[in-house]
Amino acid sequence: MRKPFLFLILAMALGTLGLGSTLLAADDAVAAEPETLSAADFEQAENLYFDRCSGCHGTLRKGATGPNITDEKMLKKSLAELETMIFDGTDAGMPGWGRTGELDKAQTTLLAKFLQLPPPIPPEWGMKDIKGTHKIHTPVAERPVKPEHKRNIDNEFGVILRDAGQGAIIDGDTKKLVGIVDTGYAVHIFRVSATGRYFYTIGRDGKVSLIDNFADKPKVVAETRACLDARSVEVSKYKGPKGDFNDTYAVVGCYWPPQMVVLDGKSLEPLKIISTRSNTYDTNEYHPEPRVATIVASHHDTEWVVAIKETGMVWLVDYEDLDNLKITQIETERFLHDGGFDATGRYLLIAANMRDQMAVIDLQEKKFVTKFETGVKPHPGRGANWVDPVYGPVSATTHLGEGKITVYGSDPEGHPQHAWKVLYEEDTAGPGLFLKTHPNSKYIWTDSTLAKDEGDNQKVCVFEKANFKKGAKCWQVADHGKVVHFEYNKKGDEVWISVWDNDGEMIIYNDKTLKEKKRINEDWMRTPTGKWNIYNTVHDIY
Amino acid sequence: MRKPFLFLILAMALGTLGLGSTLLAADDAVAAEPETLSAADFEQAENLYFDRCSGCHGTLRKGATGPNITDEKMLKKSLAELETMIFDGTDAGMPGWGRTGELDKAQTTLLAKFLQLPPPIPPEWGMKDIKGTHKIHTPVAERPVKPEHKRNIDNEFGVILRDAGQGAIIDGDTKKLVGIVDTGYAVHIFRVSATGRYFYTIGRDGKVSLIDNFADKPKVVAETRACLDARSVEVSKYKGPKGDFNDTYAVVGCYWPPQMVVLDGKSLEPLKIISTRSNTYDTNEYHPEPRVATIVASHHDTEWVVAIKETGMVWLVDYEDLDNLKITQIETERFLHDGGFDATGRYLLIAANMRDQMAVIDLQEKKFVTKFETGVKPHPGRGANWVDPVYGPVSATTHLGEGKITVYGSDPEGHPQHAWKVLYEEDTAGPGLFLKTHPNSKYIWTDSTLAKDEGDNQKVCVFEKANFKKGAKCWQVADHGKVVHFEYNKKGDEVWISVWDNDGEMIIYNDKTLKEKKRINEDWMRTPTGKWNIYNTVHDIY
Repeated sequence: MRKPFLFLILAMALGTLGLGSTLLAADDAVAAEPETLSAADFEQAENLYFDRCSGCHGTLRKGATGPNITDEKMLKKSLAELETMIFDGTDAGMPGWGRTGELDKAQTTLLAKFLQLPPPIPPEWGMKDIKGTHKIHTPVAERPVKPEHKRNIDNEFGVILRDAGQGAIIDGDTKKLVGIVDTGYAVHIFRVSATGRYFYTIGRDGKVSLIDNFADKPKVVAETRACLDARSVEVSKYKGPKGDFNDTYAVVGCYWPPQMVVLDGKSLEPLKIISTRSNTYDTNEYHPEPRVATIVASHHDTEWVVAIKETGMVWLVDYEDLDNLKITQIETERFLHDGGFDATGRYLLIAANMRDQMAVIDLQEKKFVTKFETGVKPHPGRGANWVDPVYGPVSATTHLGEGKITVYGSDPEGHPQHAWKVLYEEDTAGPGLFLKTHPNSKYIWTDSTLAKDEGDNQKVCVFEKANFKKGAKCWQVADHGKVVHFEYNKKGDEVWISVWDNDGEMIIYNDKTLKEKKRINEDWMRTPTGKWNIYNTVHDIY
Repeated sequence: MRKPFLFLILAMALGTLGLGSTLLAADDAVAAEPETLSAADFEQAENLYFDRCSGCHGTLRKGATGPNITDEKMLKKSLAELETMIFDGTDAGMPGWGRTGELDKAQTTLLAKFLQLPPPIPPEWGMKDIKGTHKIHTPVAERPVKPEHKRNIDNEFGVILRDAGQGAIIDGDTKKLVGIVDTGYAVHIFRVSATGRYFYTIGRDGKVSLIDNFADKPKVVAETRACLDARSVEVSKYKGPKGDFNDTYAVVGCYWPPQMVVLDGKSLEPLKIISTRSNTYDTNEYHPEPRVATIVASHHDTEWVVAIKETGMVWLVDYEDLDNLKITQIETERFLHDGGFDATGRYLLIAANMRDQMAVIDLQEKKFVTKFETGVKPHPGRGANWVDPVYGPVSATTHLGEGKITVYGSDPEGHPQHAWKVLYEEDTAGPGLFLKTHPNSKYIWTDSTLAKDEGDNQKVCVFEKANFKKGAKCWQVADHGKVVHFEYNKKGDEVWISVWDNDGEMIIYNDKTLKEKKRINEDWMRTPTGKWNIYNTVHDIY
């Protein structure tokens, strides 16, 4: 009866630090011998991979928005083939990094060689590491108890200055720069605490910066490196019978290590790490790198709605009691990316972009509702909600893979016959990243940032809520850079649009007349991407 | 502002299968060069480690009930030191495997060398692997709709025949063997479906066997290998407003991979894998091997209460909706092992044995209550509950590390002043594994299986509920093997005790008179360890 337990001995040999130059592949496991790299080249390649590739393909290269590109697969291609792919991009939607000037020939070759070597496994980043990076520049007790200024905080904007590793705070009323703060590397988003007092930024390097909007000159009052690679940060927004959690917590969604980190909302003191390592929803295989994509804070419960990309799960993480933590793990679809609420806040509409689908989660019942195809790689950002004259409340997404906006019903109570069904599909100026509207606006704005032709990627398209099927009015708003991302002012009568360029601009449109109102394009406006109005961000107005 | 992202290149080199002989340690990371092993020796050592060491030290050797023994640490000791430790045991409680005859000198040397080499990382075992092992020998439709026999199923016993890889079913009324079935390797426990119809066994090799008690001759009607290393299996026991979950699910707690596997209760079809890879409750570090120790099914809710050993968390896994799975993760204490309910079923009392503590979880409030010291390495099995004349409802544990039974209050509603406080400590005949009682019994029985002196490990001790502080009456019940584990019959007037030996025995005592009633010691009674009465197991009577 003895059933011997035979472990498969997997890839087990001790390495030394900086071993890039001595990595060897086993003869019988791969198709070809990879070229070796010097430690310096390996490190450079690692940084290039982090900057250009890991977002879509994953740190361990197992694929997400981009396909699996592990070394076993890459060794089946020639170096020349890989170089062409990296330099020119692919029809499947991969950018041509050489073509767009991001990588030169030598970097392309280096990256191709790197891809044929096993991926370096990044280290863990636990509580001790995080605490080691935690800095309180201004303790809570030393912060002002009321604003030190007369600005209208509700209408301030936080603007990413991406390549500068900075954030700019702009007064939405006067359009004047209030201040610039240093943040993490290549900041991804701003979020706002529930009272509007604090901005939080998250860098791609996992660094969270807390900015006090009460200060006359906005400044970083605390910072923590919660991860080694990150994209999302969110706050606690619940106030009700369970307690007042406004400004209580922040939560960081990490790409690496695959985890969430709960921080004190006012000091950024790290409180708890929640691992996301788990199994895929469909094949039930263990995935070593389930990354945290978007996080949205419920207004109706003590819950963060967390998209776990690679496993295709939405986790509802209840922050009411961190020591006895309730998580509801909802099977959804791979590979989850971005999304937001419907107009009521009851439903989460989230893109499974590599499955060309939007998925719907009922946050009241805490369960999956449905999913449906919308187009090639939906990418709604937070999405856009409005009332269609024919179909009632609807929501929409743009797409990374095609120039299309897709509109679907999102009112299962009032209009069950249209709920979660595609109602309109209309062309935009090209594959894009974002769309936006506001309850006070007659329009929906879309970008076409990923359009291949220069010019098209500088356009915006505007649809009329009252007559959507009429199609878009599109025009070019800049003659340089890439045009990306929209944000309304608090009143909902202005739209802010970024020109993503070293000589960046913020173009402000009158939303009623669709006429340009102002451009902010001083020297400091370097590589602006996303921007967030405080009031709209707190209240999830989109 | 550029903050380069530098991955620490960790232990990254491709290996080939069966690489034992070529494992090399990096010069700068360790104190000495380990000896190499041939592939055959490496495999033998791996099996020895699995059999004798991994339970306490973990597959990756990071420690649990035993200390961390990773290769970096082992290289700081000489081979001779390691051999002595393995052969003679330690004062800290490690068994002397040579002394007890389990390992010879050559095996001891081999194991010492193995410990100085990096641990082989076992493979994953996902849904596809599990499905590949799933066999239905008798489909549900072909099973009898009522018992094919006149036996009293409620009073049948499932008995582990450990080294035979078998389970014996014994008629508790007649004490006659009903049948023997082949099970997994070194079966750890039996569990019973909520209706009493099915026995489930779990082998250390992760194999679950489903035994139909309606069959005239009990037989394995389905089997599945849910893990590569396992200790626990449990069933769904809830029947109430949420539905009837009797006999609906089984759940396997794996040691490796660190996961739970939910199976269909009647077919053992694998339904869902839930990874337990997560962070420790205290230091918040990622742990690669959080093993599932005991699992207990709530009678009051659709919940499995799951002890995650290395992280020190109790997870309440709600099986009402597997696709939208709710888990409450309760911070408790490291390293969780075994436990059971209080008399009401509201509280879980669980041993954190390396912390010398018992922890209390409130399953109604779904939160941690308290923890308290009881002695050296508490090990209650399911525990024992009775009403003390002075203190009211109490519960108790024995200890792996000392010959002591500790009794504590477990009635926070009726006797809050005594709740979760140690009330009695009395000597047993030596360090032991189990204690047991029954609501109809006047006594509590304890074993002393781990006593070092031959004779002492063949004793049982009996305490009187009515006069606990009088101390134990102890006597030797066998002159061979080790005496271990108790189970009552359904009426609670008989106690069954195992003599764990190749020439094993099941000794049955009259619980009222404390006189021996019968010995079952036919040839087939090989290495009996645990045994479970169907009625008592279904209803958690202890």
